[in-house]
Amino acid sequence: MGFFSVLETRARQTGSLLCVGLDPHLPDLPHPDAQSARDFCLRLIEATADFAAAFKPNAGFFEVFGPQGIEVLMEVIQTIPKDVPVILDAKRGDIASTAQAYAQAAFQTLSANAITLSPYLGYDSIQPFLEDSQKGVFLLCKTSNPGAADLQDLMVTQLPKDLKVEGAYPLYQVVAMLAQTWNKSDNLGLVVGATHPDALQQVRRLVSDLWILSPGVGAQGAALSEALKAGLRKDCLGLLIPVSRGISRAANPYLAAQELSQRIQVESQKILAARDSSA
Amino acid sequence: MGFFSVLETRARQTGSLLCVGLDPHLPDLPHPDAQSARDFCLRLIEATADFAAAFKPNAGFFEVFGPQGIEVLMEVIQTIPKDVPVILDAKRGDIASTAQAYAQAAFQTLSANAITLSPYLGYDSIQPFLEDSQKGVFLLCKTSNPGAADLQDLMVTQLPKDLKVEGAYPLYQVVAMLAQTWNKSDNLGLVVGATHPDALQQVRRLVSDLWILSPGVGAQGAALSEALKAGLRKDCLGLLIPVSRGISRAANPYLAAQELSQRIQVESQKILAARDSSA
Repeated sequence: MGFFSVLETRARQTGSLLCVGLDPHLPDLPHPDAQSARDFCLRLIEATADFAAAFKPNAGFFEVFGPQGIEVLMEVIQTIPKDVPVILDAKRGDIASTAQAYAQAAFQTLSANAITLSPYLGYDSIQPFLEDSQKGVFLLCKTSNPGAADLQDLMVTQLPKDLKVEGAYPLYQVVAMLAQTWNKSDNLGLVVGATHPDALQQVRRLVSDLWILSPGVGAQGAALSEALKAGLRKDCLGLLIPVSRGISRAANPYLAAQELSQRIQVESQKILAARDSSA
Repeated sequence: MGFFSVLETRARQTGSLLCVGLDPHLPDLPHPDAQSARDFCLRLIEATADFAAAFKPNAGFFEVFGPQGIEVLMEVIQTIPKDVPVILDAKRGDIASTAQAYAQAAFQTLSANAITLSPYLGYDSIQPFLEDSQKGVFLLCKTSNPGAADLQDLMVTQLPKDLKVEGAYPLYQVVAMLAQTWNKSDNLGLVVGATHPDALQQVRRLVSDLWILSPGVGAQGAALSEALKAGLRKDCLGLLIPVSRGISRAANPYLAAQELSQRIQVESQKILAARDSSA
């Protein structure tokens, strides 16, 4: 079963589009060591697994602890229930021969089900990650941070011929269109920040079927309902809402995850109803 | 002393612009394990240190071995003589709070002196790596792989106002110009593939002072003398030529590194002489 089929099954079963971020930020740990990062993640998994469509550990917060951090990352991924997909947030991107090593590191060594990648090096840097259709890729398109504008909003003319499109488009939209053509085995999605609902809407228009991982809800301050309106597919799936600090820093992460998951569900149903009545 | 001052001192002392890549590709190892990667790298360091302006381990080839791979990477970096700068080829790029963790992982946990980064997320994803002027960054500009054209050659109109430039430029040249403005502590350089000598020349025109890491000589087939002609600064420094498989796969890596280093030196002197006579 392909990665996105597994994700859709999970999303339907749980009624959740919540992706729980496993980001053991140093300032959030009682001690700055790998053991504390492990405890932080295992507690978060236990508290939130019922409401998680997926889990997303960010590699950076484990790498900071060296070999012990990677050991913890492996244990964390092993601890996640088998029916919940694991997206390794690693934002890798290297030439093909190196990309092969990174793909093996993510999918075999760490046993992640999907990974986030940067598009800057082009198709041959992505292709080694797409070979196994059971594994998924989320390609950075429009990120949630302020610096996203520096490159991603630049207006591009003379688009690649493969796209069969003329005119000028911001770079992130070109990436979305390229991703569509690169998605030969139905295992490529995009990252579009919920902090940019207009961009999210534009990308959804360009790629009606792709899954979009949409960070920025919670600590980064994006509004959930706007993101859902802009990014949900017609079937009210296709959008994953990752939340990290909004859950891990809550007094009760179980309740925080439950509430977020339910809010997503209620808002989604409202959007579906509004779409149906206007159709 | 800033990172590029250390690098320049080393380059002048050795007369070498050779950067020895430490890439334990799985097919090049007698056994597919971390121990073999360790032996591969330590032998390569011992054989080539005399001729290395810098060493460049690529993180992907270590990550594939999990925690043991990171342990080996740490040992490899510790083994490199203290006067030879270590550039961690990691091509990271994440939002600021995560970038901080990655910077700590590279510069503190692993003790690298510099790192390669992707520009796709913009300035705030780079800034945490630039805070310590003793540490350096090489920002991906025009990479050596075929897919580089997919995004990096796209023509950009309406350039960022800070650049005070009008007209249309390929994206990689916009990145070069942005890097110039982001380089507030003299610790930012660029990656421009030797496989694209025209692009290298264009970038050198745009950034007359920045160091450029120029991969592609050797296994990827780029011509050394063309790259030197296109990329050397006026002082015949400012260009690092990383070679990995071209040395590690040689019958005698010591002789291969010596020969490469000398060829770079001879070609550089020819170029300097030609420039002087035409000036």
